[in-house]
Amino acid sequence: MEFSVTSPISSAQPSGVPELHIPVFDDVLAAQQRIAGIAHRTPVLTSRTANAQSGAQLFFKAENLQRAGAFKYRGAFNAIAALGRDERSRGVVAYSSGNHAQALSYAAQIQNVDATIIMPADAPAVKVAATRSYGAEIITYDRYTENREEIGLRVAQERRATLIPPYDSPEVIAGQGTAALELFDEVGPLDMLLTPLGGGGLLAGSALSAAARAPGCTVIGVEPEAGNDGQLSMVKGEIVHIPVPKSIADGAVVTHVGHHNFPILKAKVDRVETVSDDQLIETMRFFAERMKIVVEPTGCLAAAAVLKGVVDVVGKRVGIILSGGNVDVSAYGRLLAGE
Amino acid sequence: MEFSVTSPISSAQPSGVPELHIPVFDDVLAAQQRIAGIAHRTPVLTSRTANAQSGAQLFFKAENLQRAGAFKYRGAFNAIAALGRDERSRGVVAYSSGNHAQALSYAAQIQNVDATIIMPADAPAVKVAATRSYGAEIITYDRYTENREEIGLRVAQERRATLIPPYDSPEVIAGQGTAALELFDEVGPLDMLLTPLGGGGLLAGSALSAAARAPGCTVIGVEPEAGNDGQLSMVKGEIVHIPVPKSIADGAVVTHVGHHNFPILKAKVDRVETVSDDQLIETMRFFAERMKIVVEPTGCLAAAAVLKGVVDVVGKRVGIILSGGNVDVSAYGRLLAGE
Repeated sequence: MEFSVTSPISSAQPSGVPELHIPVFDDVLAAQQRIAGIAHRTPVLTSRTANAQSGAQLFFKAENLQRAGAFKYRGAFNAIAALGRDERSRGVVAYSSGNHAQALSYAAQIQNVDATIIMPADAPAVKVAATRSYGAEIITYDRYTENREEIGLRVAQERRATLIPPYDSPEVIAGQGTAALELFDEVGPLDMLLTPLGGGGLLAGSALSAAARAPGCTVIGVEPEAGNDGQLSMVKGEIVHIPVPKSIADGAVVTHVGHHNFPILKAKVDRVETVSDDQLIETMRFFAERMKIVVEPTGCLAAAAVLKGVVDVVGKRVGIILSGGNVDVSAYGRLLAGE
Repeated sequence: MEFSVTSPISSAQPSGVPELHIPVFDDVLAAQQRIAGIAHRTPVLTSRTANAQSGAQLFFKAENLQRAGAFKYRGAFNAIAALGRDERSRGVVAYSSGNHAQALSYAAQIQNVDATIIMPADAPAVKVAATRSYGAEIITYDRYTENREEIGLRVAQERRATLIPPYDSPEVIAGQGTAALELFDEVGPLDMLLTPLGGGGLLAGSALSAAARAPGCTVIGVEPEAGNDGQLSMVKGEIVHIPVPKSIADGAVVTHVGHHNFPILKAKVDRVETVSDDQLIETMRFFAERMKIVVEPTGCLAAAAVLKGVVDVVGKRVGIILSGGNVDVSAYGRLLAGE
């Protein structure tokens, strides 16, 4: 299967078979316009300790301080803002128990669009409450007997609403690319850029921005050791499916990267590395102890690859995206306590 | 006992008895010049959730993101920078197992001044390591049989070095006042300003800035319920001593406020409130869960008074100083986990 990565979303033509609309950098720029003044321009943090430890100059883009606690707000907001008036009036639907649910609910609320979120009946109460606090309608399902994708499609069809996927969407990819774009615009060219990798929304979007803003920049995705489908896919040159992986990086336990995402990864990402759960916990502790910030395990993926020496960064200027900070505070506390 | 609070440090004259040099706002301005470009101008954070919960507009001055993890760096740096060349060449001494030790060591290192820190032999290894990493010499003592103040004085005399107290010092007070000064300069006038209260360095300095920048602003210090010596002192109109209090707010478990600090509190602070350890823990969890930042228990004092309804803030513009973020990460984790 071959995909073009040069045509902008708007130039893609409908055809007999469902066609992929692969976003380009212009779509990231369009997303940046849409989210301006709405998504936070999150700070770029530095740490003398982290620099000394790694022998590099590290720039952490703190998306844990983004609205709704993760970069997901960028893509969710952009996807809703890109809808036409009719589509907006019919609302949006998502299935997610994680950051995408909260981000989409919040982005919909801000834009006066109805949101329906399909969540497992046994989702953590704190996540359900946070999603509901943004005004979303929540439909629960039994995740042992029911299929959330079927329910999502059915609800979307019944309500003629638009289903917004968490990563496999050109508008979502374009929106996620704005974090790296801000990073380059703030600190200038970088030798390397590392981002967490789950379904590939953040990595694909970041790769578009890196290619445009710093053509020589090495772009690396980092995923959990137990869920190395992205790494396998990059090596094989096609999307590899794996069983549902087990990792504390709960935002990256996907079975395969997205169909809109993979062509960009293939064309613009150098490689994918993996880190262990223990390395994630040590990195999470580092952020709490030395930088005084809460970063969720998934958000630590890229940083762990650098701080734990998985990637050689000596002497380089390195951008690292901290993708989110949404934690169950008790579980987070137990991880910090080493229990 | 009466103290003047109108004469600047430099105009105080030596006399037969040891004289207090009570700082004024000009000393805060001088400190601001000295620390410019060296101490971080920490961000002012806001939270829709915290605003909704309190019914007020809250501005959190994030000194947990200050160098060495606490506002203490401001006062420590200013106290060293105010020394003459001879004094600097002979070094500085402090007794502290907390944030002052780290702040002074770091400030001394930056200014190429030798620092000696007197710490208990059983101080947490992480604190000893952090202090040593800033290049300080550490002298340990047995806190069950030896007196740290005597050791500090003896070491200072032997080396002809300058003892820098953690709060009872005009230069330290003036330095600490720069945090509130930055806050007022960034967000404009406030109806109320709340700060943690231990020995009174931060509260006294903040009160000087508030009186100069927002004369109508109500200034409130917040201390742990179990260590309400400041509240007792304000009510009685003189410094009240209490036994060593027990609280998780380990930066505020002092037996009495400072002699340089109290005259300013008496003249410029409206009142002192107290919060419980449970209220501090809930506030610490709020910061981790909703704002993604690590604030140590002492750093939560002022915020807890607002978020837990101890102080009525409805409809007001309220400044809150988060004084520090230095935690033992395992102990912090256990508190978050509710264990």
